[in-house]
Amino acid sequence: MITTDILIIGAGPTGLFTVFEAGLLKLRCHLIDALPQPGGQCSELYPKKPIYDIPAYPEILAGDLTDKLLEQCKQFEPGFTLGERADTIEKQDDGSFVVTTNKGTKHKAPVVAIAGGLGSFEPRKPLIDNIAAYEDCGVEYMIKEPEMYRDKNVVIAGGGDSALDWSIFLADVAKSVTLVHRRNEFRGHLDSVEKVQELKNLGKIDLITPAEVTAIHGKGKVESVDITKIDEEPVLIETDHFIPLFGLSPKLGPIATWGLEIEKNAIKVNNALDYQTNIPGIFAIGDVNTYPGKLKLILCGFHEATLMCQAAFQIINPGKKNVLKYTTVTGVDGFDGTRKEAPKQVVKTIN
Amino acid sequence: MITTDILIIGAGPTGLFTVFEAGLLKLRCHLIDALPQPGGQCSELYPKKPIYDIPAYPEILAGDLTDKLLEQCKQFEPGFTLGERADTIEKQDDGSFVVTTNKGTKHKAPVVAIAGGLGSFEPRKPLIDNIAAYEDCGVEYMIKEPEMYRDKNVVIAGGGDSALDWSIFLADVAKSVTLVHRRNEFRGHLDSVEKVQELKNLGKIDLITPAEVTAIHGKGKVESVDITKIDEEPVLIETDHFIPLFGLSPKLGPIATWGLEIEKNAIKVNNALDYQTNIPGIFAIGDVNTYPGKLKLILCGFHEATLMCQAAFQIINPGKKNVLKYTTVTGVDGFDGTRKEAPKQVVKTIN
Ligand SMILES: Cc1cc2nc3c(=O)[nH]c(=O)nc-3n(C[C@H](O)[C@H](O)[C@H](O)COP(=O)(O)OP(=O)(O)OC[C@H]3O[C@@H](n4cnc5c(N)ncnc54)[C@H](O)[C@@H]3O)c2cc1C
Ligand SMILES: Cc1cc2nc3c(=O)[nH]c(=O)nc-3n(C[C@H](O)[C@H](O)[C@H](O)COP(=O)(O)OP(=O)(O)OC[C@H]3O[C@@H](n4cnc5c(N)ncnc54)[C@H](O)[C@@H]3O)c2cc1C
Repeated sequence: MITTDILIIGAGPTGLFTVFEAGLLKLRCHLIDALPQPGGQCSELYPKKPIYDIPAYPEILAGDLTDKLLEQCKQFEPGFTLGERADTIEKQDDGSFVVTTNKGTKHKAPVVAIAGGLGSFEPRKPLIDNIAAYEDCGVEYMIKEPEMYRDKNVVIAGGGDSALDWSIFLADVAKSVTLVHRRNEFRGHLDSVEKVQELKNLGKIDLITPAEVTAIHGKGKVESVDITKIDEEPVLIETDHFIPLFGLSPKLGPIATWGLEIEKNAIKVNNALDYQTNIPGIFAIGDVNTYPGKLKLILCGFHEATLMCQAAFQIINPGKKNVLKYTTVTGVDGFDGTRKEAPKQVVKTIN
Repeated sequence: MITTDILIIGAGPTGLFTVFEAGLLKLRCHLIDALPQPGGQCSELYPKKPIYDIPAYPEILAGDLTDKLLEQCKQFEPGFTLGERADTIEKQDDGSFVVTTNKGTKHKAPVVAIAGGLGSFEPRKPLIDNIAAYEDCGVEYMIKEPEMYRDKNVVIAGGGDSALDWSIFLADVAKSVTLVHRRNEFRGHLDSVEKVQELKNLGKIDLITPAEVTAIHGKGKVESVDITKIDEEPVLIETDHFIPLFGLSPKLGPIATWGLEIEKNAIKVNNALDYQTNIPGIFAIGDVNTYPGKLKLILCGFHEATLMCQAAFQIINPGKKNVLKYTTVTGVDGFDGTRKEAPKQVVKTIN
């Protein structure tokens, strides 16, 4: 059982900044995310695109935003359960909550902050009959640990940035990379498309288009797949892994059944106070919540997270008064023992 | 008469970010500030100190934050009335407001956003009987245009960072700089104190401590001042300017009489919707407002400004629907003709 002060569901920008604000109040956080990496939509959907409306950043790539948020909260040592979906929640007799993931990992905390964005990112799967049997036995819809592909034969399917970028990356790691796409055209950043062309010319990526993977074979794990070009017979290719990268799409999913008030596929909160839901102790912040005038913007999640942490402090430290302190004035003491502080002014005679 | 869409009172971080968010909605802004420069508390009180809780900035100097916000909103060509205090507001028959400053400058807009922080920054003045008669005739409490001191004799009084930094700056500009402080010890950044010591040793700054300016003389403008060391006779020193830099302190001031609901020296707003005050069309955002759970933090002002701009859009464009667009997706079109946009994805065959 993982225990913490604030259990955050969703490691997008809102969840990550919550760790920092909670840390200032000496509260520890643990984050659960269905994705294998933190960053939410920013890291999954548009890491290489610039955002222009993060305050005081005239321009920042979504991936860099994620890195900065991770750097900022690092002092407060967040815990992560990645690649797992929060599925159930149970209220305990002591008032705390236990949240269990689809892989059975259990987390306990007095406060739960749902920062689930548009929902848990779930892969779009190819329509191959027996594919479920091979999941995690050679079929992966997201790449969690690139090292597991070292010196293996890998078949990747897809025509977007993920398929392009992982083909490029694994070309250096895997024994062989075969990239299969049902069109001849790829849709992605120009440099990614050009790099794949180059690696194909060098014989480092095997390109098969227009084609689809139509069957998976193997005893208990993937051993080969059928690749079928339009109007042709399937060709059997030996491989250790089949990685369909058809994109991930967010689904509110199990959270919708937790007894929370839902409106327009989002969780209703009290925006006049602390972004608490109808269940005391459960808050919803960032894209996942709704209230009159709600804007699904990153900067709004930051504000909501900050106010929510004050309320969490009160739940966790009943009766204790928290006086707002400026980081500039008091500095920041990390749980890791590091301290950030402004250089002191001096009082000095000039003579 | 200066006319604009949103008249912003206060050019602190909240006011500056409002310009950007308004610009995204094609609304123009004009800012009034009592200070000679934008940035509010950040530029006036702690420009060289690091802030640690601006989201995605693990550390940023308050002065750099101001620069970044100015850079971000530059595309939307804000107007500025600086060094003037907004004193009166009058509602017009057409529903708009006219705001007049202490110097008589008039501004007209359908929406007023008060982003006045802790109030208008007002100088602490030395207790010299006839000083008021010399204001703007040789006595300045803030430095608005450093160039006006070129080749002039200048007496600066004060013992903090402003006095130190302006002495350093003007040592290169003015004919002579005399720095007077009632103690021997100065309180400031180490490098500023050391630099003044160095310039004093080089004879570029005349230092008189512990001493005070006790009288001002001159016909219609400053011609000389008396400088008195403790237990000594006053010494007359010829000078063109006397600049007392004893710090500026914020006062809510005239805004308190505009008929707005005031609580704890702040303006009550509707935080459940759009941060509007009890007077429709007048909003209050950032440190100047109050509501249940209010935190006087920079990041909160950013959120409040953003929601406020949506409401301003509705007032200015009645009945027009505004659909939220991501800057990443649509890019940003400045009023100055510039455009920021994400590099397009390509659709390209690999063969
Ligand atoms: C193309 C594009 C461009 C954009 N441009 C901008 C822009 O310019 N400016 C701007 O402000 N915003 C922009 N946005 C929106 C912005 O990305 C979102 O507002 C932001 O990501 C919301 O952050 P969040 O942390 O609330 O949620 P998300 O980033 O959505 O993160 C939520 C995370 O929670 C996880 N999760 C949800 N439910 C569960 C569960 N049950 N178990 C485990 N994990 C779960 C998800 O997997 C996800 O990783 C853009 C979005 C897109 C798609
Ligand atoms: C030493 C110190 C350290 C701080 N550290 C932090 C920190 O670490 N993190 C954080 O988030 N915040 C911090 N703050 C607080 C932060 O500076 C404020 O929250 C922020 O400046 C508020 O921005 P604002 O734009 O709302 O108001 P302000 O920055 O106060 O700007 C308001 C402006 O309005 C002007 N004004 C007001 N009334 C009038 C009028 N009638 N006419 C003309 N002009 C007028 C004022 O002159 C002023 O320039 C700190 C503050 C101080 C003093």
